[in-house]
Amino acid sequence: MTNSATNLRLKLPMACIILEVIIIILFGTLVQYDDETDAKLWHKEIANGSSNYDNDFYYRYPSFQDVHVMIFIGFGFLMTFLQRYGFSSVGFNFLIAAFALQWATLMQGFFHGMHGGKIHVGIESMINADFCTGSVLISFGAVLGKTSPVQLLVMSVIEVTLFAVNEFIVLTVLGAKDAGGSMTIHTFGAYFGLMVARVLYRPNLDKSKHKNCSVYHSDLFAMIGTIYLWMFWPSFNSAVTAHGDDQHRTAMNTYYSLAACTLATYGLSAVVAHDGKLDMVHIQNAALAGGVAVGTAGEMMLTPFGSMIVGFLAGTISVLGFKFLSPILEQKLKIQDTCGVHNLHGMPGVLGAIVGAVTAALATKEVYGDGMADVFPDIQSGDVEASFQGIRQAISLAVTLGIALLGGLITGFILKLPIYGAPPDTICFEDGIYWELPGEEGSHEELTTVRTPDEAEKLNA
Amino acid sequence: MTNSATNLRLKLPMACIILEVIIIILFGTLVQYDDETDAKLWHKEIANGSSNYDNDFYYRYPSFQDVHVMIFIGFGFLMTFLQRYGFSSVGFNFLIAAFALQWATLMQGFFHGMHGGKIHVGIESMINADFCTGSVLISFGAVLGKTSPVQLLVMSVIEVTLFAVNEFIVLTVLGAKDAGGSMTIHTFGAYFGLMVARVLYRPNLDKSKHKNCSVYHSDLFAMIGTIYLWMFWPSFNSAVTAHGDDQHRTAMNTYYSLAACTLATYGLSAVVAHDGKLDMVHIQNAALAGGVAVGTAGEMMLTPFGSMIVGFLAGTISVLGFKFLSPILEQKLKIQDTCGVHNLHGMPGVLGAIVGAVTAALATKEVYGDGMADVFPDIQSGDVEASFQGIRQAISLAVTLGIALLGGLITGFILKLPIYGAPPDTICFEDGIYWELPGEEGSHEELTTVRTPDEAEKLNA
Amino acid sequence: MTNSATNLRLKLPMACIILEVIIIILFGTLVQYDDETDAKLWHKEIANGSSNYDNDFYYRYPSFQDVHVMIFIGFGFLMTFLQRYGFSSVGFNFLIAAFALQWATLMQGFFHGMHGGKIHVGIESMINADFCTGSVLISFGAVLGKTSPVQLLVMSVIEVTLFAVNEFIVLTVLGAKDAGGSMTIHTFGAYFGLMVARVLYRPNLDKSKHKNCSVYHSDLFAMIGTIYLWMFWPSFNSAVTAHGDDQHRTAMNTYYSLAACTLATYGLSAVVAHDGKLDMVHIQNAALAGGVAVGTAGEMMLTPFGSMIVGFLAGTISVLGFKFLSPILEQKLKIQDTCGVHNLHGMPGVLGAIVGAVTAALATKEVYGDGMADVFPDIQSGDVEASFQGIRQAISLAVTLGIALLGGLITGFILKLPIYGAPPDTICFEDGIYWELPGEEGSHEELTTVRTPDEAEKLNA
Repeated sequence: MTNSATNLRLKLPMACIILEVIIIILFGTLVQYDDETDAKLWHKEIANGSSNYDNDFYYRYPSFQDVHVMIFIGFGFLMTFLQRYGFSSVGFNFLIAAFALQWATLMQGFFHGMHGGKIHVGIESMINADFCTGSVLISFGAVLGKTSPVQLLVMSVIEVTLFAVNEFIVLTVLGAKDAGGSMTIHTFGAYFGLMVARVLYRPNLDKSKHKNCSVYHSDLFAMIGTIYLWMFWPSFNSAVTAHGDDQHRTAMNTYYSLAACTLATYGLSAVVAHDGKLDMVHIQNAALAGGVAVGTAGEMMLTPFGSMIVGFLAGTISVLGFKFLSPILEQKLKIQDTCGVHNLHGMPGVLGAIVGAVTAALATKEVYGDGMADVFPDIQSGDVEASFQGIRQAISLAVTLGIALLGGLITGFILKLPIYGAPPDTICFEDGIYWELPGEEGSHEELTTVRTPDEAEKLNA
Repeated sequence: MTNSATNLRLKLPMACIILEVIIIILFGTLVQYDDETDAKLWHKEIANGSSNYDNDFYYRYPSFQDVHVMIFIGFGFLMTFLQRYGFSSVGFNFLIAAFALQWATLMQGFFHGMHGGKIHVGIESMINADFCTGSVLISFGAVLGKTSPVQLLVMSVIEVTLFAVNEFIVLTVLGAKDAGGSMTIHTFGAYFGLMVARVLYRPNLDKSKHKNCSVYHSDLFAMIGTIYLWMFWPSFNSAVTAHGDDQHRTAMNTYYSLAACTLATYGLSAVVAHDGKLDMVHIQNAALAGGVAVGTAGEMMLTPFGSMIVGFLAGTISVLGFKFLSPILEQKLKIQDTCGVHNLHGMPGVLGAIVGAVTAALATKEVYGDGMADVFPDIQSGDVEASFQGIRQAISLAVTLGIALLGGLITGFILKLPIYGAPPDTICFEDGIYWELPGEEGSHEELTTVRTPDEAEKLNA
Repeated sequence: MTNSATNLRLKLPMACIILEVIIIILFGTLVQYDDETDAKLWHKEIANGSSNYDNDFYYRYPSFQDVHVMIFIGFGFLMTFLQRYGFSSVGFNFLIAAFALQWATLMQGFFHGMHGGKIHVGIESMINADFCTGSVLISFGAVLGKTSPVQLLVMSVIEVTLFAVNEFIVLTVLGAKDAGGSMTIHTFGAYFGLMVARVLYRPNLDKSKHKNCSVYHSDLFAMIGTIYLWMFWPSFNSAVTAHGDDQHRTAMNTYYSLAACTLATYGLSAVVAHDGKLDMVHIQNAALAGGVAVGTAGEMMLTPFGSMIVGFLAGTISVLGFKFLSPILEQKLKIQDTCGVHNLHGMPGVLGAIVGAVTAALATKEVYGDGMADVFPDIQSGDVEASFQGIRQAISLAVTLGIALLGGLITGFILKLPIYGAPPDTICFEDGIYWELPGEEGSHEELTTVRTPDEAEKLNA
């Protein structure tokens, strides 16, 4: 391991600054305020009888901020469970999220429809950009500890682009519904990341094995991430659903799904973990699967009852996945999934897609009334039958899996190029390789040793 | 101490899964979307001229999320102050809150009035369920470190039920006002928990004494809980008050009460603590008493001036309680109150009830104008005099104390049965009994010892 | 160092209680609910056709809560980076914020216009009080670790007063715009604090040098502060801007500025830090400079493009400031700036003021349309030209710098009086001087040593 290989003095600044300059130029050329953020245009609407309250800001900004917390605190701290990778977990999460949300604004803007050659931005584009970022952070979880920040930025460039393509196909071309992103965010992010991890397989990773685990306080930091994700998931799933009953119902379905999922997680964890004790890995992750699994159906008339069943199932398969499937993935399929994203986002995402397809296929005018127009506009307009909407949902899952796996494969090979300063097998899961660390020795001594009598005297004086 | 006694492999899964299955069945049978979450019903209201903004979601969802943060982060992290009980504090808080909010939805639904045999759910039921959960978590604070998760679930089943009964009597039968729950939440939860702790008295708890204290970083984690509770208490007290001036005023009164309480807490702490230094226990707890103490009167025309006086008093009695009363409770009354909930929720809750009774008795049409209808509908309608409203408030406090103490007594005896895997006196306040702990030895060494020259070289390379 | 010098038993209670009593008396005499929090007055507005939704609470309360989190969690935890000063960072932050927001309500009330001899309070006064508090906390960052809580309270009394005077001159007399406070909050707080730090210069501070640095977990706690500040800065800058497009646009401009700033920060940090590694100090601080730098122009039609350029510049100068300017400030100018507030708030604040002046000078009716009335009412009304508005902005910067520096100078000398229990040079950056610390020795051993076979057996039993 030589100095130059993982030294980021040139690589990271080049990546950050070049990417940011490109983004700024593209924003300068292509991006405009939308009707609700532009002073002139909004005041035209006011002159035409709108009230300031009609500005979408007031419908969605609280949800946006909750989503924002999930992206930066939730994902960031969830990954701090590693004993020696907290700086990188929070810090790289911060870096790639700040990049991805800008890049996503551009990529989603291209596909969601330009306005006279311009991308319009407002609160909805901000939420969608955060959503796309979430997908990248899921993939980050699969390769956590084994990648350099430059690799992660490159991965983000490609993944955000493919996310926007897939989202366009699923939501616009196929006409599927996926407000909370069981498919477009979770399934996509998980299988993309797993495929990248597969290509980047490190046969000698066991040399860093002793660092690939938690310590007491790192698990507590991770719980900050878990709890924030859990609490704000109702806001995540409802952030871009239609105004009124739709936002309200989506938030509530998610809340019930998560609650039921949590009970299942604790129950199952005690069954499968060593000695009938609880395993923090399950609590930190599987308890969230209920949010993933109602990402598609949450806005539908799933009922609290249906939401709870889905949540219960999601928690169950997630715990079982951590216990039984993850070791198989690693040993047989050579997928080293650091955070177990397959269990938290992969399988529950697929479950969520299936639940969405079934729930859509069962939609009736009797249940939805005029609300059908919000949830399934194509059924309301008579363009499709409910059963066909179900089929569109199912096809969307297949498309998402295909694009994610293929995209992850290609991205993996690009990231395999030995030019990004990736860590060697012996120094994975280790902050010290990319971060100046505080002097631990002296300072730690300070914290733990008995003070000298002299010092003690001063303090007690 | 044998294996079987505290092993949860059968007990916890049985408790979790049976309870969740019961809940799911009851939800399937009894629970429906309300008018604002149901697609068909809400669109009927839209057809009748409502705007999406009239959906209560937009009035209350931001407050709900703040309350949610208080329940899961606030209470959860506040209790991580124990050096070796962080997993259990956050983790059991998470478990029993996820359970209690579901159970509370059912119990409160029964008592708050069924609609054609169905319980209607929406944002207000979600807030109320979180409130009820808060009460259970207060009781949890009294028995923290000395109970198994199975005991806690059983306690939650009973306490939620009695909470709903008491709430029904206080708010519906007696017609008292208690929007922020000085009585129904804080007084109830505290005295219920204290009585449970009394019955579960452990004469040999001093065998675990060395773990019943904090370390440096555990106190910092606890401050996360404190600060979140402090910041969001205005949302808590105003979450279910009437729209408009009521929510606005309640939030502001709480904000001022807490600010004054904080100054009193710091001042008093320096007076009573050792050597004129500040005591973290006071800061973490007593600074919050101002929120508790305006839980009843916060929605009334208490004025900022009145709110500050109440907050100042609450901080004062809370610090003094920690210093002088807690030792007496433990030694004379045999109540081992781990978190000092008597000082944070008990006495300030009673203070809040008294303040509420006095403020209600002083209500005049001159001060409230037409706003009287929101705060005291029975006075507005002429059904009662203000003085009688004050009496109803006072009776409500007595009823709450009675139900809490009696309920806690019975619950304590039920929890005393030796079937729940409670920890022995020697291993209280210890995560290791219920949680798989990360390997500390090797990993900690990793964190603190001087690296080998070889490793150091690699890192610096 | 004798006992009496830093013992707070008398000093802190006297300061806290006297100040709080004064505040309560002044509130009793001078403060009233405004039209939107008073039951009678609001219901008069309702009777006149207003809807509850017109209550400013619903426009601003979510933003207020985000600002509140920035003040108490953001600032509080950002300063926990010191290895041994976490209790004081969070705890003194808590104390002086709780005091300052009350005092600010009074001081700003005097200057923002009394109503019949009374100060009216509501959600907007709460946000403004939190803003003023933010300024005090910035100054706290400059003197962190070297001041007693009594000194900090005295500093707050003076600084809040001068803040209100400066704010009055800048916003009311000069008619400048500064919704996010690049000038009034950041520039003012930074240069005030730097001047105080200059006067309180400690030539022998190197005796505490070994404690003036971070440890691994303290840096992670600090990242909690950083991320919260970063996420909620859009709410900060938009909290008091006009309803509708203004709040919406301000939040979005801030979001883009911060994202670009973050990329610049990571890039520059890797360039200037040791060995091409990232430096936590930069990430924790410089990544936030983008929020500071659009504090004035954020509500203007800066465009996302302009916002990103400003953010990118802010991150760049902030990292360079930490690397090259801070050592000069300390060695040549004798300013010991503990948190580097000059780099995070000082220079980016001045940059923000300049950007604001330029953007204002370029305002045209063509771009703003009728929205001009919200952003630049004096230009809309024809009272001033855009270019003159730019000049007013520039003058405001000069005035702010003048009042901050002069105020800080005087305050520094007042704080130099040897009566406040300030720590000696040898025990700076040390919680133990003002806080009862948990017994670390025994407890830490508990956490790290191999358990005795006996204990281990019990745990594994």
